[in-house]
Amino acid sequence: MAVSGGMLRVETAGDGRIVDLTEGVRSVLRTSAVQRGLATVFVRGSTAAVTTMAFEPGGEEDLTALLDELVPRVRERARDRRSGEADAHAHLRAALLGPSESVPVVDGDLLLGSRQQLVLLDFDDRPRRREIAVQIVS
Amino acid sequence: MAVSGGMLRVETAGDGRIVDLTEGVRSVLRTSAVQRGLATVFVRGSTAAVTTMAFEPGGEEDLTALLDELVPRVRERARDRRSGEADAHAHLRAALLGPSESVPVVDGDLLLGSRQQLVLLDFDDRPRRREIAVQIVS
Amino acid sequence: MAVSGGMLRVETAGDGRIVDLTEGVRSVLRTSAVQRGLATVFVRGSTAAVTTMAFEPGGEEDLTALLDELVPRVRERARDRRSGEADAHAHLRAALLGPSESVPVVDGDLLLGSRQQLVLLDFDDRPRRREIAVQIVS
Repeated sequence: MAVSGGMLRVETAGDGRIVDLTEGVRSVLRTSAVQRGLATVFVRGSTAAVTTMAFEPGGEEDLTALLDELVPRVRERARDRRSGEADAHAHLRAALLGPSESVPVVDGDLLLGSRQQLVLLDFDDRPRRREIAVQIVS
Repeated sequence: MAVSGGMLRVETAGDGRIVDLTEGVRSVLRTSAVQRGLATVFVRGSTAAVTTMAFEPGGEEDLTALLDELVPRVRERARDRRSGEADAHAHLRAALLGPSESVPVVDGDLLLGSRQQLVLLDFDDRPRRREIAVQIVS
Repeated sequence: MAVSGGMLRVETAGDGRIVDLTEGVRSVLRTSAVQRGLATVFVRGSTAAVTTMAFEPGGEEDLTALLDELVPRVRERARDRRSGEADAHAHLRAALLGPSESVPVVDGDLLLGSRQQLVLLDFDDRPRRREIAVQIVS
């Protein structure tokens, strides 16, 4: 057994912006030289999430529109009333989507579909520098 | 340490159809002979998802109705306008639910609840042949 | 390679109640003495979920209000019509959020953000005793 990994650092504009992490995760994987195992991608923080999607034109716009509708940012929420901030919607979206995904590693590569990317969604109401941990067990 | 695994291949009717993967995952697990570890189930592709649920009468109907309401398939979305296809809702549902779940393996079995199954949800607007990777680390 | 772990047992009031699992998971991790690996938290059962959030005043209230809105408990659903119970909303919420999260372990600790806790959400319509498995691979 072995555990290897690395930390991806990305700057985002926040506000629901989606960042493709796939090449960054692949880079950590190549450095590890693992051929078969499990790669877990985990974002630190409570206003961002990790999932997979086809990161193609229209997809980011659709997902942002959906979340704006399901979890609107305008309405006053309990957290905002207490904190004086305006990021309660970001906390809710992050909890709903979750901070981690795990992807099988086979033949030294992520076993993603051909149109499936690992993405970070940053819901915060301001630009952020994010740390995304990539942990590989093999 | 050891990594073992297998690929489940299932044909679905798409359109939100839910497929119970539990016995397939257990079959891969038995072949691996792992007694203690972690089993990760991951669907390749960006219009399907993996979660757990009580796969019982009414459950599939309820979940389909909920997703039809939260993420309707009828409304024109940015992806569909660009692609000329009609599967943007499927991409959104898949990103929301996520492609993977990890289940502890104890005493050679999945540590699921008695009424908890691993399921695939296929949101595509047409029948699909799906590949679901089962990766077991131990 | 090694696999270690433990089971957390918590009693909840159900009804969407959120329980902070972080210290419990850390306790299992300390017992394992693992310095580098992956910790997976998995709730057994089909009416509860695991995610991460800033477990701070207002957060539980906001998340409960959001889920009451997105997946109302009052409306009659197919499962309830068949079972005569009233927990279909709980099954739906659990499937939507998912039962597991995996967190990297680095330097003997969970690599959570400073305001990010591992939480259990119990959606059942009555008090429950829950089993949450913590599986650590290293």
